[in-house]
Amino acid sequence: MTNKIIEFWFDFASTYSYLTAERIEAMAESNGLVIAWKPFLLGPIFKSNGLVGSPFTSNKPKRDYMWRDIQRSAKIYKIPFISSTVKMPQNSLLAARVALCLDDGAQRAAFTRQVYRAQFAHGKDIAELATLADILANLGHQAAEILVQTQAAEIKQQLFANTADAQTKGIFGAPSVITQDGELFWGNDRLEDAMAWAVK
Amino acid sequence: MTNKIIEFWFDFASTYSYLTAERIEAMAESNGLVIAWKPFLLGPIFKSNGLVGSPFTSNKPKRDYMWRDIQRSAKIYKIPFISSTVKMPQNSLLAARVALCLDDGAQRAAFTRQVYRAQFAHGKDIAELATLADILANLGHQAAEILVQTQAAEIKQQLFANTADAQTKGIFGAPSVITQDGELFWGNDRLEDAMAWAVK
Repeated sequence: MTNKIIEFWFDFASTYSYLTAERIEAMAESNGLVIAWKPFLLGPIFKSNGLVGSPFTSNKPKRDYMWRDIQRSAKIYKIPFISSTVKMPQNSLLAARVALCLDDGAQRAAFTRQVYRAQFAHGKDIAELATLADILANLGHQAAEILVQTQAAEIKQQLFANTADAQTKGIFGAPSVITQDGELFWGNDRLEDAMAWAVK
Repeated sequence: MTNKIIEFWFDFASTYSYLTAERIEAMAESNGLVIAWKPFLLGPIFKSNGLVGSPFTSNKPKRDYMWRDIQRSAKIYKIPFISSTVKMPQNSLLAARVALCLDDGAQRAAFTRQVYRAQFAHGKDIAELATLADILANLGHQAAEILVQTQAAEIKQQLFANTADAQTKGIFGAPSVITQDGELFWGNDRLEDAMAWAVK
């Protein structure tokens, strides 16, 4: 029997997606599931749903709570996290394009995890070429080659298509997980429910 | 030792607050906690945070997901739920004032649970006098007397004060739980975390 696929939809600028990126691989493995790594852009979806930007940007009490909540959750999960130096919101466009230049599997998974770590454990700006080049080099990739590749029309089109696909599937936020039978789960706090659904 | 108090902040129009209203009493009891029942109005807080109304009203994909998510959760918790006939958003003003006419304890707890049930298990409009009068009568109260009492300046002022107090404490949504040491937890899915925090 082939393993079932679960789609993990993320925007690199999404704070709660960091927690899911850190947790999903071990959970998928123990449930016999294969992850499809799906970078997309929340911005156009927010706009299309009538939002000016992320609710965390415009709503200060919600943003303050979010940082505190992620800090508590990271402690429970034993995930490194510093909020004090995290720039927000980050521009996730280039990181998403890099992710699409890498194979959907171990390569994209490792890159994704490192981008989130750079942002939330080390306070880096993920829109900077240097941040992404360092991550790529540390993972053994030809950084310059991949950064050039991000500007190809095909990669830009893939990100556009992923975002359109996300919206078609009902996604309005990140992290989102979609099981093979099409069930949508939104939020890091629904990851356990998504796993249970996927294997039932 | 006296039991610790946890504050349960709810707006009767908040859909996820139904799940918490159904679950919190058993959880508080098993953790040796006393609940302070805190009705408030989300509307003024949304407005003050730059929102036009509930995100569920304006954002259709988010609303569609919310109903599906509550349906799934209700099934997991074995809580009765019908979404098909639920009017949304509901006007929660009168129900909140009634709650403040009742003792903060068993009386207010029972009324709160019944208002949420009327809305989410029986599809009633909780802004209607008949809905609230029925609930009050079934709980053994003098319905007419209490409905008249809701128009007293003191009750109106209490609801206003509760809402201002919620905002001062950082509340931006419902359900919210605040532990005795002031820690805020937002969302039905943080109820377990709030309990663990309260007893640590």
